[in-house]
Formats: sequence, structure tokens, C-alpha cells
Amino acid sequence: MLRMSTLLLRTLRDDPADAEVASHRLLVRAGYVRRVAAGIYSWLPLGYRTYRNIENIIREEMDNAGFQEVHFPSLLPREPYEETNRWSEYGPDLFRLKDRRGSDYLLGPTHEEMFTLMVKGEFSSYKDLPLSIYQIQTKFRDEPRPRSGIIRGREFVMKDSYSFDIDDAGLEASYQRHREAYIKTFNRLGLKFNIVSAMSGAMGGSKSEEFLAPCPTGEDTYVLCEKCGFAANVEAMVTKVAPYAGDVAPAFEVFDSPNTPTIDSLVELVNAKFGGNITGSDTLKNVLLMADGEAIAILVPGDREVDLKRVAANLPGVQDLRLFEDEDFAKNPALVKGYMGPQNAQALGIKVYADPRITLGSHWITGANEKDKHARYVTHGRDFSVVAFVEAAEVKAGDLCPQCETPVVIDRAIEIGHIFQLGRKYAQALGLTVLDQNGKAQVVTMGSYGIGVSRAVAAVAEQTYDEIGLNWPAEIAPADVHLVAAGKDDSIFEYAAKLALELETAGLTVLFDDRRDASAGVKFKDAELIGIPYIVIVGKSLAEGKIEFRVRNVGSKAEFDVASAASEILNAIR
Amino acid sequence: MLRMSTLLLRTLRDDPADAEVASHRLLVRAGYVRRVAAGIYSWLPLGYRTYRNIENIIREEMDNAGFQEVHFPSLLPREPYEETNRWSEYGPDLFRLKDRRGSDYLLGPTHEEMFTLMVKGEFSSYKDLPLSIYQIQTKFRDEPRPRSGIIRGREFVMKDSYSFDIDDAGLEASYQRHREAYIKTFNRLGLKFNIVSAMSGAMGGSKSEEFLAPCPTGEDTYVLCEKCGFAANVEAMVTKVAPYAGDVAPAFEVFDSPNTPTIDSLVELVNAKFGGNITGSDTLKNVLLMADGEAIAILVPGDREVDLKRVAANLPGVQDLRLFEDEDFAKNPALVKGYMGPQNAQALGIKVYADPRITLGSHWITGANEKDKHARYVTHGRDFSVVAFVEAAEVKAGDLCPQCETPVVIDRAIEIGHIFQLGRKYAQALGLTVLDQNGKAQVVTMGSYGIGVSRAVAAVAEQTYDEIGLNWPAEIAPADVHLVAAGKDDSIFEYAAKLALELETAGLTVLFDDRRDASAGVKFKDAELIGIPYIVIVGKSLAEGKIEFRVRNVGSKAEFDVASAASEILNAIR
Repeated sequence: MLRMSTLLLRTLRDDPADAEVASHRLLVRAGYVRRVAAGIYSWLPLGYRTYRNIENIIREEMDNAGFQEVHFPSLLPREPYEETNRWSEYGPDLFRLKDRRGSDYLLGPTHEEMFTLMVKGEFSSYKDLPLSIYQIQTKFRDEPRPRSGIIRGREFVMKDSYSFDIDDAGLEASYQRHREAYIKTFNRLGLKFNIVSAMSGAMGGSKSEEFLAPCPTGEDTYVLCEKCGFAANVEAMVTKVAPYAGDVAPAFEVFDSPNTPTIDSLVELVNAKFGGNITGSDTLKNVLLMADGEAIAILVPGDREVDLKRVAANLPGVQDLRLFEDEDFAKNPALVKGYMGPQNAQALGIKVYADPRITLGSHWITGANEKDKHARYVTHGRDFSVVAFVEAAEVKAGDLCPQCETPVVIDRAIEIGHIFQLGRKYAQALGLTVLDQNGKAQVVTMGSYGIGVSRAVAAVAEQTYDEIGLNWPAEIAPADVHLVAAGKDDSIFEYAAKLALELETAGLTVLFDDRRDASAGVKFKDAELIGIPYIVIVGKSLAEGKIEFRVRNVGSKAEFDVASAASEILNAIR
Repeated sequence: MLRMSTLLLRTLRDDPADAEVASHRLLVRAGYVRRVAAGIYSWLPLGYRTYRNIENIIREEMDNAGFQEVHFPSLLPREPYEETNRWSEYGPDLFRLKDRRGSDYLLGPTHEEMFTLMVKGEFSSYKDLPLSIYQIQTKFRDEPRPRSGIIRGREFVMKDSYSFDIDDAGLEASYQRHREAYIKTFNRLGLKFNIVSAMSGAMGGSKSEEFLAPCPTGEDTYVLCEKCGFAANVEAMVTKVAPYAGDVAPAFEVFDSPNTPTIDSLVELVNAKFGGNITGSDTLKNVLLMADGEAIAILVPGDREVDLKRVAANLPGVQDLRLFEDEDFAKNPALVKGYMGPQNAQALGIKVYADPRITLGSHWITGANEKDKHARYVTHGRDFSVVAFVEAAEVKAGDLCPQCETPVVIDRAIEIGHIFQLGRKYAQALGLTVLDQNGKAQVVTMGSYGIGVSRAVAAVAEQTYDEIGLNWPAEIAPADVHLVAAGKDDSIFEYAAKLALELETAGLTVLFDDRRDASAGVKFKDAELIGIPYIVIVGKSLAEGKIEFRVRNVGSKAEFDVASAASEILNAIR
């Protein structure tokens, strides 16, 4: 039994100054967490009980799926991360330190290397596979902008699993087992979620899906088709376009276009000059990028921006991608800033990629590669050609679902899980091979699967809170029943204590508000803020032999007879 | 159910090269832990199950005692540790690091500051106390010599509790509650332990006791009276001496004593020169120390060494204590190395402390403060005096128990717990006060209570292993039953699988050795090494309708009928 008179808990009336999202605000106000430093939090008793309920559900579901629990240190030697090149690749997100002998260590931001080496140390034959192992462990990442309380912290807990298989079919099966276990887990946590394609299969990326919990203040945006359920993160959204079916354009024609620094001004000039009613989507932007030091051009319709994340996700192998800067133009005087067109790209030796909207045969108003001049009727396949199509333009609400062609919506969410076919990268780098049936060494293929455990506390809070406070699902709440002794008479406290004991004896956890020096009003406010799903009030009506029973998330109230209160409460809950 | 065919486990035939103690050797060989770096280990599935059983028992007993669980980060900002001066005091044992903005952080070696600040943040009145809170959390200490596997690591898990009280009586009550909870906890873990005084009350130190698990290779030594049960660590052992009852000595007399560099040579010379039969215990060593930069002298009988740890523990307030070095003698030419006596210490301005054996009135053979000269009949209280008695001489087996005067033994053990009346040090430094009944701010007094959670895995292993392997108590073992299918016939595997399922259905956890490619001999060896308390063998005798049931720790064997095997096994276990 938890007693409010002794519990390490002080609820706060005011929102913390740094709280931008509801879960942060409420978890602090209700006394669940406290900030220690930027992105680093302590858990108070109610918070840690909630956290542990979530951790236990996740562990149970992983065990039910037959995954084996292991545990790695947080403090890790540099060497394995050197072998996979992540010691440097991780950049400033990695917490690095030296021990007393001057050896380099890091705080594990993720444990691919350690899982790979553990399996390498024990297993050697195809007969040992498949294997799925997991841990629930603290991770450390020096986020540039820790925010939203425990949603994006610098120290947080993840459940991370890895699967090990001899071949791609095995990996696919392991991936599906994790996918199913994740669905069960998030259902038990009471989370609404969408499974979102996280990487375009079209460009040969491995399979990857994110579990996103929709939430208006979530920091992830994704594309959702409310009709057929298609969901993808922005990087993985596939553009639906019909082949060009219009007329063949006349030969392209250059025209003067001074003072057209923007697409709008260009559209205005063209409509004025030639009549007609073209819009930004009839113009073509030729956006120059530096891809690993090489200049490339991306063609998108004039009414869309290039989404660098989409380009990066769909140009595999490119590490470093950025927009052209003034000094890049200075080094390439043949490239005329603001008047680029794809017509002479081949002559300039620049690779041109096109968004799928730039269909073969379509014609465009674009730059003429000469200051103050544009061209029209510039036709794909006749006047210019491209190396490849690449998903490049920003995604907008109303774009067509690639499955059912319904206009999609752009939704916000918190990422709560991620499953990913990692392939052979780590096994290759660290030499994890097993002998196959023919006695030949084969590099093992791996899957990687993560759930944000501490983040899930906030995700559940975000999806369930209401205007009066937190509002936990029963399996996650820090107690089953919040029992309030509301009044001043000893009889109220005595009966309430007896009822609390009866409920505890029957197997419920009771948070008993036995404070003598708090008013009924304060106690009700606290109960609402703390968000335990069932609230029992022993108050004035005790004189008439009644107590009150409230169900927090539906707002219902019922009166039970004192004589049968415990059994009626148990019935109502079970 | 755990299946050996799929479990991430490979037992090793050979001891690891760096293993000095049995738990280390066996936990590695039986596939429980793996070394990642010096003092840093990973847990394999069997190891982590064992670890979690222990963690859960500890958590249950803390909750049963009414202590509230909280959780702090590992990554901690420098500031609070600066306020208590521990940022620098901790020295090279502390892992320090900087974040991307250059701010200083540390990895928590212990969390006094954080607990203190948490309570300061929430509570403000004497009515809020007493409070006891705990966490089970990873600790980091950069040990100069990590050793003995998980017994003394650099990353390890502790349960650490703190109590908060308004006055000394409250602290004493909280201390006793923790003491009782610890006794229950260690009993449930199946550990044999002694509760050992860790600090001498005589010199005003706060109360402190260690829970020591006796073990021949333990790195802690302590004093044990096998008659009355008195136990103390060496620092806290109290010398039992009778008042001096001999004759008053003649006036002291200086004599020539060349070539007496050792006590033995001095004894020989004295016995030759004056006749008689004195021993080293009739001579007096005058040992010079530097205590925080000041020269002090410690008098001990010639047959004992000074134990610096005992002196330090019994000279409160002294931070830095060391033996005189040559350069200290060089700076103090009046101090004659090898010929020091306490006779002129006052003249030299040196504080002299005496071991309690240097009783008032007793007389000694000691240095004459002149090269090649000693003196005899030098009498305490007549020829020299001391500032105070201090426990200084090394403790030896056979010294008298301070309670019952029986000769004590010196035993070895692993420290598994420590309870400590911390007092007001941290509350004072960090400003943790509450208002008392009169509205006056009072500094809170604290207790500190720790259990080594990961270390307990090794401690239990050390106390229970035998010549064939690990040998877990039932509540801690990674599974309840180790079921071996021993043979080649399908019928054996089919029946064993059925039996395993029956036992699991009845609520037992079964480690099922279902390997087809391992011999019966290998399977038996593995079962012995892994150390699960009950072993069931389905083998040749299955043809006669029998299976075998072994109890690991008593070495008993029984045969059960196949028809009733599950229920007979359940009966035998429960």
C-alpha cells in the first residue's frame, strides 16, 4: 500500500517553465519525474512504478516470443566501435571518456557491436541459428537539443534486440516475429500506433518500419492514408504519378525574364508575357547539391521544395549531402545561380536526378543557364535527360496514397519502436561468420529492433491525458485504486484504512490518501492529476453507509454500500 | 522453457586465464558472464536470469520494509559533487567526462548528493519524515585493480538506500529497520554472513556495520569470535587489556646498543647484556607518521606492526596519513631514525599516541633518542606521557575477544552489504533542512545502506559451489529443473519434451537439454557445471518405465515411475 502521508510526492500547481508538451508538464506536476540536467531525469516513486510496469510488459512479451535476455555494460571500450568506424562516425552525439590509464571508452548509445561480438564469441555453426537476443538497458546520447522531458533525453532506457540468421529468408522470418511481438507489446501498453515504412524498398534499402504513436505534439511527421491505412515516414513516401499524356511541346524557346527571383514572380511574368494561366507546378526547379563533394542537380516542380532527407534516404551510398553554397557557385562559374536549367547539364558533366513528377515527355518552364533568361517547352527526354528518378520533392498533405490514390494526411507522432533489417554490415566488420551445411564460412545477417522504454511512459501519457491530468491505462498505472479519505472525522479514516487493507488483501495496489492535513478539494485535484484509473472516495456519504466509486477515463460515478464496497469495487475493476 | 539447443550458451572446458577465484572461474566456464574490458562484464542469458532473481528478492524485501523505490541517472552533473567536495576528493576512482558543450559530468560512483537533493526538492517539514528511499542502479568506479570477475568491477549494480530523519533517535530507528531488512534479504539469498562492526564507537565515529559473507578467497579480512559471535572488521577491533599490575620499575637507564637494526637483534642484545628472557613484546616501537602534514608518534609493542588503516579509522578528522620517509627525517634532524623513544617527545613538540597495550605504569625497552643507544625501565606516566590511546597495532589471530576474552580468529569474507549512520554531512553541505515542531529549520540526519547486487551473484556462487561446478540455492537458480534427454532414441526425446511441458505447465522453469548432437556425458558435465538444483534424467531406464531425479546439493538420486514422474518431481521440489 502506498500512503500519501508518507509517499515521496509533492504535486505542483504550476507547469515547469521548460515544458513544451503535455507529458512533460504533467509528469513533472504529478511528481513522477524531476530534471537533473538537460535531458537527464530522476524518477520519483510513482514515476518509477509506472516505468517498471511498462518495462515488465515489454520483457514479458519479448520472453513470450522466445527472445533471450542478455545484458551489456554501459561503459564500452573504444576498439569494437573503431572496427565499425562508429567511434568517429557518431560525432558529438557520443559521450567519450578516458579511464585512469588513459584508455578510451564510450557510453553505449546503441549496442550493435557488443551483440555481434557476443554471438561471435559463443556460436560458430548454422545449426546455432536463428537466434534473437535482447536487453533492456540505459543508453546515452549527447543530443544537441534534448527536449520534451523524457521523450528525447540524453540518458534513457531502450529495449534493443538483435536477430542473427544465416540467410535472407531467415532474417525475414526473424523480422516478422519481432514485428508481431511489437504489435502485441504496444497493444498491451494501450498505445495507438501506426506501422510506418521507414525506407523506400524501390531504391534497394533494407526493410525498415517504425512504430509511431500519433500525438499532435510528436516530433516525427509521417504520411497516413485514412482510407486504406497506408503509412510511411516522409523519406519512404512513394510518389504516385501517371505517365505524361499531354501533347508534344514545340521546340524549346528562350525568353527574357529579368527580376524573377522567385517562382511566383516567374509565374507572373510568364502569364503576363504569353497569356495563359500557368502555376508554379508548371515550372521546373533545378536544385544544385553537393553529394560527397560532387555537384549534382535535382529537378523538382517549382511549387515544391527539395526535401534533403528524402533525397539522402533515396540516394544510397551518399554520406554527406548539402545544398550548393555561394562558394560552390564561385568555383563553378558555368553554373548560373537562379537561372539553372537541365538542358546543358551533360555538357557540364553534372549528374541530373529528377523527382518522379518530372515524367518522361513532360515540358517545363525553367532557367536558360544565362542570367535574366528562362526557357519554355523544355521537354524531358528531348531537351534533357536524367541519370535516374529519385524521390526528392517535399511531401504535402493531399498527395496521393501510393496504394489507393486517396489524398493522404500528414500526421505527427512519437516514435516508440523501430524494426530494421540490418543485414551483414556489423557481422562483416567484426568477423561474425558461421559454417554453413557445406562447412563454408558465411557472414551472418542481422536484424535490429528497438523500443524506447522510458519514452513509452511519455507516449502513453501523451495519448491518454485529459484536461484534468494524467489518465493511465490500468495495466500501467502506478496503483490500481486511488482511495481518498475525504473529511475530518476519525470514522472516515478508520473505514478507509480498513477498505484499503481489504483491497490490498484481494491483490490490488492501493494509493491511499490518508493525509489529515489536506482538504478534500486538494485530495480530489491530486487524484485527478496523478491519473490512477479507479478512484474511491470515502467521505460525507459514509454516514449514510455509502462510498463513491469513479472510473477516471469515462468520468462515471457510482455509489456502493459500505458493507459490500470491497467486493463491488473488485467486480467493477475485473 | 529454456532449450539447450537454442540457448545462447557455450560452456568452456578450461578456466579463463585471469580467474583467481572460484566464482569468476565457474561463472565464465558455465556461460553466465563474459569479460568486455577490465572490470566490465556482459551477462549471458543464464547469468542474467540469476542476476534478476537476486535483484527481485532484494527489491521485494526493500518494498516489504516500506522503503520507496526511486531511480537516478548514471550521468550526473558536476555541481552537486562540487558542493560536497567529492568531485575532487574522489580522485582517479571517478569517471569524469564532458558533454558537447564542455560541461563537466561524472558517472555516479554512489548517489548521496542526488538522494539528498531529491528530498530537499520535495520535503520541507518534520511531518514528512522519517523517509527511506532506495534505488537499484548501475555504479561506476575506476578501480585501480579491478579483480575477481564481478566481485570488484568498474561497472556494477548496487541497491543503495538512504534514510532521512529529524533527529538521532529517528536515525537509530531507521538504521535498525534497514538492519532487519538486510538480515531477511541475505537469509533469502541463502548467504551465510556475519554482521561486523565497521567503526569503533570508542572514538566517536558514527555507527556502521558491514555484512560479510565468509569465503576463503574474500578480499576483506575481519575478526571473529567463534565463542560469542563477536565480529568486527580490523579497523573496529577493540583491544582488550588489563591495567598494569606489575612492579614500579627502577629509574630508566640508557645503554649502548650498536648493531640492533631489528627488534630481534635488540632482544638478543638485551638478554645477553642483562640476562633474563625478554621478548619483542617487552620492547616499544615509536613509529613516526605524517598526519595531514604534522609529525606524530605512535607507540606499539615491538612484536606488532602499526596498522595504518586502524590508526586512520581511529583518528577522526585526519585525511592523509603515511609513514615517515627519509626526507621527513632529513627535515627533522632531532628525530633519530631507529633509536626513537617517547621520553623527549614533548620537548620536540610531537604528539604521541599509544596503542592500548602501552598501559599506564608499564615500562619498556625503547630507543634513547641517540644513535646506537637504547633505554630500559622507560615507564608510561613517569618517563613519558601520551595525548591519547588509539587502536594502532595490527590485529592477530589469538587476540582476545573484547566481549568474552576468547582468542579470536581472523577470517576472510566478501562484503555484501554495508549500513552506516551518515549523519548530517550531506544534508549540511547541500542545505537539506526541514522545519521542526517549533518552525525552526533543522538539518536532516541521514543513514546510508548498500547491497552489492551483481556482486551477490558471485558471493552466492562462492559459498555454494563444489568440486563439480556451480550449485545454486533454489530461489536464485536460473531455472528450477535441468532436464536431460540422455540417449539417441526418439522415444527419449519425445517423452522428455512431454515431461518438460508438464513441469512448465505446473509453474516450474525447465532448462531442457534437448541437444541431439551432444553425448550423455557432455550433458551431465554441463548440468553439473551450470548448477541448477534439481536434475532430471530421461535415459536408458525409460525402457523400464523409469526416470532419474537428482538433488544437486546433496548428491541424492531417486527413480520415479514414468507415469507419475511430473507429480513426484513436483512433490520432491515443494
